[in-house]
Amino acid sequence: MTGGEALVETLLASGINVCFANPGTSEMSFVAALDANPDMRCVLCLFEGGVTGAADGYARMTALPAVTLLHLGPGFGNGWSNLHNARKAGSPVLNVVGDHADYHLKYDAPLQSDLDGVARSVSNWTRRIDSVDDIARDTAAGVKAAKSNNGQIATLILPADVAWSDTGGAASQVAEAPRALHRPDADRVRATAARLREPGTALLVSAAALYGELADVAGRIKARTGCELLAPFFAPRVARGEGAVEMAQMRYQLGQNTEFLAKFKRIIYVGETPPVTFFAYPGKPSTPDAPGTDIERLCFGDWDIEWTLHELARAAGVDGSETIDRVELNLPSPPAPGPLTTDAIGRVLALQCPENAIMVNEALTAGHAIWPHVDKSRAHDRLKNTGGSIGMGLPAGVGAAIACPDRKVVVVSGDGSAMYQLQSLWTAAREKLDITVIIIANGGYRILHEELAALGVAPPGRNAQRMFDIVEPDLDWVSLAKGHGVEGLRAETVEDFDAALKIALDSPEPFLVEAVV
Amino acid sequence: MTGGEALVETLLASGINVCFANPGTSEMSFVAALDANPDMRCVLCLFEGGVTGAADGYARMTALPAVTLLHLGPGFGNGWSNLHNARKAGSPVLNVVGDHADYHLKYDAPLQSDLDGVARSVSNWTRRIDSVDDIARDTAAGVKAAKSNNGQIATLILPADVAWSDTGGAASQVAEAPRALHRPDADRVRATAARLREPGTALLVSAAALYGELADVAGRIKARTGCELLAPFFAPRVARGEGAVEMAQMRYQLGQNTEFLAKFKRIIYVGETPPVTFFAYPGKPSTPDAPGTDIERLCFGDWDIEWTLHELARAAGVDGSETIDRVELNLPSPPAPGPLTTDAIGRVLALQCPENAIMVNEALTAGHAIWPHVDKSRAHDRLKNTGGSIGMGLPAGVGAAIACPDRKVVVVSGDGSAMYQLQSLWTAAREKLDITVIIIANGGYRILHEELAALGVAPPGRNAQRMFDIVEPDLDWVSLAKGHGVEGLRAETVEDFDAALKIALDSPEPFLVEAVV
Repeated sequence: MTGGEALVETLLASGINVCFANPGTSEMSFVAALDANPDMRCVLCLFEGGVTGAADGYARMTALPAVTLLHLGPGFGNGWSNLHNARKAGSPVLNVVGDHADYHLKYDAPLQSDLDGVARSVSNWTRRIDSVDDIARDTAAGVKAAKSNNGQIATLILPADVAWSDTGGAASQVAEAPRALHRPDADRVRATAARLREPGTALLVSAAALYGELADVAGRIKARTGCELLAPFFAPRVARGEGAVEMAQMRYQLGQNTEFLAKFKRIIYVGETPPVTFFAYPGKPSTPDAPGTDIERLCFGDWDIEWTLHELARAAGVDGSETIDRVELNLPSPPAPGPLTTDAIGRVLALQCPENAIMVNEALTAGHAIWPHVDKSRAHDRLKNTGGSIGMGLPAGVGAAIACPDRKVVVVSGDGSAMYQLQSLWTAAREKLDITVIIIANGGYRILHEELAALGVAPPGRNAQRMFDIVEPDLDWVSLAKGHGVEGLRAETVEDFDAALKIALDSPEPFLVEAVV
Repeated sequence: MTGGEALVETLLASGINVCFANPGTSEMSFVAALDANPDMRCVLCLFEGGVTGAADGYARMTALPAVTLLHLGPGFGNGWSNLHNARKAGSPVLNVVGDHADYHLKYDAPLQSDLDGVARSVSNWTRRIDSVDDIARDTAAGVKAAKSNNGQIATLILPADVAWSDTGGAASQVAEAPRALHRPDADRVRATAARLREPGTALLVSAAALYGELADVAGRIKARTGCELLAPFFAPRVARGEGAVEMAQMRYQLGQNTEFLAKFKRIIYVGETPPVTFFAYPGKPSTPDAPGTDIERLCFGDWDIEWTLHELARAAGVDGSETIDRVELNLPSPPAPGPLTTDAIGRVLALQCPENAIMVNEALTAGHAIWPHVDKSRAHDRLKNTGGSIGMGLPAGVGAAIACPDRKVVVVSGDGSAMYQLQSLWTAAREKLDITVIIIANGGYRILHEELAALGVAPPGRNAQRMFDIVEPDLDWVSLAKGHGVEGLRAETVEDFDAALKIALDSPEPFLVEAVV
């Protein structure tokens, strides 16, 4: 058995059976091992940001790591930014990066670089496999690391000679379960539970408490104690639409959040960092909470969120008889015909939203008008860019669709963001994924106009404008889609968008709608 | 004057007047300063790999750094792989990366990451600007660093509050000239010069000795001493075609190089690392030189190549009366009509090659058949991927065209490579650059088939094949070009390619030819 085979068999034995990949020569023994193990589903992405972003989307829907296959330092570098997003989302990801054979390193071949350095700069856990004797152990340790602390970025550096050497016998292992998560002191949880009943108290939950059973627990706590229930703006995955537990979501802009939080005397955080503005602005505070607000970090993001919420519920007297405040279906009125607007996109999307869809949200400025409509549509999960590095939408949509083949995935992305990893369209076509892509074509990085104004700078001049606006020439998204093997339609009016979205959602394969606003 | 203005004025005062950019909020004060300084040419790229690759291409043609403008850790991460290529090319590049305001860092905002770590992992020189009082000094130091050691990667980290603060008066500086380069001992150069006359001696030159006046000096040394003159395979920039100094170029494959080098007893390296195989292969050596070959590293890549070559010439008795062995124009016969082949592409390209073109070569497998024809065509410069990270071709073409607006740029790229940074097509259209792009559409990473065979692995199975071949669906490059605002034509026959290339080369704006082989 080669080292590569031991690695693949350890992954499979440890429950990892999806590999997002862009391999090169140094990973050939891994590739050969994949051939010998057809249980591993291999998904080729034409750029490594697509690889890592897909692993993020997959992890958000399964809470399991996929493995990525990356080619030396540059391959890892290309995947860096979506690993950053995955790290901020708390997504488990296991990277396998090929490196030169150990004895080749001293020659400084063209592809040699500071692979360990770039890997460490975004990974929570990094290990170089020194010998074929260690490959199963190290791979199992990598799986364990990816699953630890509620999900993190683990990176294995795999020298080519380790992968091609013989293990001297069967050598796969099964990864251990991750170490038990840290828990807050039980007395503290009880004291916090008592405070939840005090007026002006909010409980902000995140991570796994934003959907499914744990969201219900949070909803029962709210029903039992009368506290307000909050969700962060940058939620990795949140249940939305009919039947979702009602949570008030934080906003992007400092001013809106400041106003929103002003009514709370105390905010208790479970699974989330207290909110901070996305950027600092001259003369403005970095955080939106009013001075004097009691900020209590009961449970950090890498602690035991499940235990904490259950314990908080128990201490608050939750007994299962509570009526959870849930979102009721409330579809908007159809938009008036005419030129397309972001408000109209939101209405049409809400009206057509398929039951149990997965919506990936990478519409920054347009989102403000779109999502309020969709929030009260049919039940769906919503994934958001958590790290602020644009270009997660299309890849995460690919990963989510691989994770949940029975669910419709809808990616809503600004044009500037979608351009970052547009190669993911090809992977969607190759894998025949059930994805609808809506490109909000507003001709550029619209958010930068807002940000320049927020910094107090006068209207942009020629140099700035040419760096904010993707015009002269305009992008043509239907052609871009076609080039990647994806069908598409362009819509400039409400009627066109309504018709195009119907066609897209009816298609079982990827379909792109360019929504010109 | 804001810090951003002091930075831009220092750049301009130091001779840097091109900025390849993809800015975000944290760089807004820099952007505002660019508005106030229209002498700085700002070129927007829709992905940061396009930014850094363009800076590489620009530097190869001007020997001057451009400045890049990047957005925090993720923006730098996206540019990492083409910085790696630039580093291996010895290209001077000055990165300016925005960061959060210093006081904002403690909140771990979404875009916060180990920016210093990722910057250091590929930069030769990295500095965080701590205060607005230091911004002119640090910027000037960055320019000097980029120009040092024959060109390297320098990175300035610019916190937003440093950029928006007031300098308290005019504060720009002019960068000092870089420190004098290290030189080999003059006695050693004289001893080496004497050995050049011994039979079986080769002189391998690189970097600035591959074109222009220094290549002539190398050619005179060859004429005077009778040594063989060699050029590396991964040459950042080399003069080719009619009138270029004859140099025998190293090959990609180990076996070919081993055979080629076997006749030399001694190889003297000036400006280049001794050759190493691109990858290690089981049971094969890492270097192609025969055991016992005398390897002499007279002058490292970051030493004084110009002085060394001139000194070597002087010691060898070069007096200017030598007849330099130059390439004579030798156009191939036109290819026979019929289905397109890589050989035919080479013939047509050689026949149509414009005088004084800049050819960017990112055709890996196809290049073996193409370039031998073009080598004896009209005079041109050739740029190659020096770091092995695919995706440098289109961005470097953009940078070269910005550097040399009066020259035709021809990018020849494999389809797999071109997909890595295809967004550069839009920048070519936006800037109306005189670029012809030839995509060798062979449906995938053809080189990986060769590499798998070189590793001794049997024909690829389904998993491997699906990771090597970009088929099902095929890419449609004419649509991809159109989507970016670039005209294109598809050619499947020799006749079609001949006609399409004529149209492309006649166009003063970017034009793409998809050459299906």
